[in-house]
Amino acid sequence: MTILNTQLPQLAQALRSGKITITQIIEASLANYTASEHQLNAYKTWAGTNALEVAQHLDSLIKQGYDFGPLMGIPISVKDMFAVPNLPTFAGSALDLGSAWQQPGKLIQALLHQAAIITGKTHTVEFALGGLGVNNHWGTPQNPWSKDQARVPGGSSAGAGVSLCQGSALLALGTDTAGSVRIPAAMTGTVGLKTTVGRWPTDQIVPLSTSLDTPGVLAKNVTDLAYGYAAIESQLSGQEVKIPSLASCKGLRIGLVENFFWEGASNAVTQEVRRAASQLEAAGAELISLQVPMCDEVFACFQAGGLSVAELAAFLTNNLPTSYAKLDPVVRTRLEDGAAISVSEYLQRKDLLAQASLVAAQTFEQVDVWLHPTLPITAPSMAEIEQLEDYRRLNMLALRNPSIANLMGLCALSLPVGVDERGLPIAMQLTAGAQQEVKLLALAQVIEQQLGYISDLTN
Amino acid sequence: MTILNTQLPQLAQALRSGKITITQIIEASLANYTASEHQLNAYKTWAGTNALEVAQHLDSLIKQGYDFGPLMGIPISVKDMFAVPNLPTFAGSALDLGSAWQQPGKLIQALLHQAAIITGKTHTVEFALGGLGVNNHWGTPQNPWSKDQARVPGGSSAGAGVSLCQGSALLALGTDTAGSVRIPAAMTGTVGLKTTVGRWPTDQIVPLSTSLDTPGVLAKNVTDLAYGYAAIESQLSGQEVKIPSLASCKGLRIGLVENFFWEGASNAVTQEVRRAASQLEAAGAELISLQVPMCDEVFACFQAGGLSVAELAAFLTNNLPTSYAKLDPVVRTRLEDGAAISVSEYLQRKDLLAQASLVAAQTFEQVDVWLHPTLPITAPSMAEIEQLEDYRRLNMLALRNPSIANLMGLCALSLPVGVDERGLPIAMQLTAGAQQEVKLLALAQVIEQQLGYISDLTN
Repeated sequence: MTILNTQLPQLAQALRSGKITITQIIEASLANYTASEHQLNAYKTWAGTNALEVAQHLDSLIKQGYDFGPLMGIPISVKDMFAVPNLPTFAGSALDLGSAWQQPGKLIQALLHQAAIITGKTHTVEFALGGLGVNNHWGTPQNPWSKDQARVPGGSSAGAGVSLCQGSALLALGTDTAGSVRIPAAMTGTVGLKTTVGRWPTDQIVPLSTSLDTPGVLAKNVTDLAYGYAAIESQLSGQEVKIPSLASCKGLRIGLVENFFWEGASNAVTQEVRRAASQLEAAGAELISLQVPMCDEVFACFQAGGLSVAELAAFLTNNLPTSYAKLDPVVRTRLEDGAAISVSEYLQRKDLLAQASLVAAQTFEQVDVWLHPTLPITAPSMAEIEQLEDYRRLNMLALRNPSIANLMGLCALSLPVGVDERGLPIAMQLTAGAQQEVKLLALAQVIEQQLGYISDLTN
Repeated sequence: MTILNTQLPQLAQALRSGKITITQIIEASLANYTASEHQLNAYKTWAGTNALEVAQHLDSLIKQGYDFGPLMGIPISVKDMFAVPNLPTFAGSALDLGSAWQQPGKLIQALLHQAAIITGKTHTVEFALGGLGVNNHWGTPQNPWSKDQARVPGGSSAGAGVSLCQGSALLALGTDTAGSVRIPAAMTGTVGLKTTVGRWPTDQIVPLSTSLDTPGVLAKNVTDLAYGYAAIESQLSGQEVKIPSLASCKGLRIGLVENFFWEGASNAVTQEVRRAASQLEAAGAELISLQVPMCDEVFACFQAGGLSVAELAAFLTNNLPTSYAKLDPVVRTRLEDGAAISVSEYLQRKDLLAQASLVAAQTFEQVDVWLHPTLPITAPSMAEIEQLEDYRRLNMLALRNPSIANLMGLCALSLPVGVDERGLPIAMQLTAGAQQEVKLLALAQVIEQQLGYISDLTN
């Protein structure tokens, strides 16, 4: 549908000039959903009928001169970790968490305040604990890039990227505690932003880790992502936020992160990400080889459960004991491993991460952004992860690179750079210092212009 | 209609809890309009049919969890000086000013952003030049307090106060360059706020005086006014503005302005305003007799045309020569008197007002607010102003007191304190320093609580 291939700044303008209507946008979204949802399974709860009604009301109001803000009429899918009015929250679990989880928090209120249209609630790994996107309660969404066999979509925001590829949503809300926005973005050829802890409120988002949870956004390209970020941030902060347009990559200091970020990478991943980096160098960026201190200790801490496992176990014990008893095996095994740590161990880990965050912040004196493959691999097939131990190995491999930005208190963005021999998307991650979202998006925009969109990359 | 007698904070709450609907509010507004408009003539252009349609859309959206802000669903009348989408602007003149004057400026955009419902465009004195509310092109709105004969509603926001008394609107937007919000408020028993120059944007408001024009709001009581001000100011500033609740009048330093403010006042006006002041003193306020320096020179400057007359003449000459040729006699005479001043004279006047503003600002080291009668008189009958010279004398008498706050760069508020022997409203003005709107509204709220609403005052 060409209407949904329009980038958000142009779409918003076309809406306001009366060239297109919100109803047309939502009809296109509905048609795309209907055509593919039986194959893709992006949504746990679809709100399309409501969406069409809302669209019609908004079209009438737009004609009367009303304008509720930049997200007015934009279809947005929401990961089923966020409370949304009138839609149940399962958080990927077997059970509806009840009406308290239909009261929207500040972030969803911000979307509604601008009259965004929520298309529905997308599938998630149960309680967001997992990077591949698997859900044995409700089925794993299908990776839209795989034509021959079932492949994972990336997770935990499993349906988020799929909803964008499907064409049912133009922005997708996710959460990212160890890569849960960037992994599905990387595996579905979309872009995804993990915000800094504290940048956006997490109230009325089912918690995985009260220490590290962050809301994030996925979009089809950086232009859309920057538009969506600026709209939400402006609404939440009350101040108009703009992402500056940079003229070129000239002078941009890119830290090519070494450490373990390239270990276990497929040839295609190594080749495509290095090629992208060289292309940026040719365009005037400076590539600086970077060793990030403390990566190994921090990732070892994560493998042992980090903070999330103990924090999720505490939340489930205290709030959802019934759900705790019915956990999806892929979540249960990870929880069982790491939940029973002492307070002393827990606080030691917090100290370690705080120390690593200080050290990581210093690397941004040398470079503007870090660059490395978002993932060493492309999307595994369902067959490859059928055995729990294979799932666990590949899950940890998928989480390894992205988790470092979470553990070190940074913000980060994944964007596609090419495809592998099977045509599956490959992505690189750009990481910036805490609260540097605007800078990160501005750099990503000029980088995207330099490298081209994935639609160009695959032609 | 009891639904429209609910104060705005409670009404907004009832809307959100589903106890009432926006449709019910607008139906009540329509019914009140239909019942009385043939007598009152508040509106130049009525938008009631649109309003009902908008209400129905908003009710559907509210059920879906949408909330566009504190003005959502609140019926607001707009003085026909503001550009509003889809409604013609006449600015009180004989001619539609054209489609450029249907593009909303920032203030109207702020209302629409919160999904306020614009009931229509209220009558104004032509180009807002006049304090009694007379319009010979479209008829003068009737003062709702006069039961026996036709009386002026106050102006230049002539239909603003009338629309509130009528029950078709709960807030009314006006403009105030020399009293044009406070005079109609005083004459119709409503409250009116004149904001500081520069506080709110004036783009897409037909200009009377580019130096002194200010948007303002009228409401049925200070509680509603404070709610409306906070909503608009929050939207425009992007920061949540709250009007604090004060416990009592204790310690409030009230400057009882002497100078000429009581000259020519009817016995009833003098008596009621002094009684109100005494009541505040009894409640713990301190009354301080205040001579405001430079009042006489500043008012003499105003009588000679001030800045407005030359500025309006310039605007009409440069932009609306056709309208200039067809001026209402009450406007023409005032324009003819003062338009032809030299640049040297114009700049001398600007200097005088700047100097007076500095001196006036110093009075707020001694007192929190000034207090004086808003007007020395209650609403004259149409018969009393039939002769142009009588019109001119009473018009200048009505403008005299309120104009000082404009000329000295202050913000000010008029609120009712009683009625005269004919049952016509009497009001006092509270004036605060530049940009002190929040303080002024907070004080006015506690003063209103002390004195009672006009509905109580007339029982």
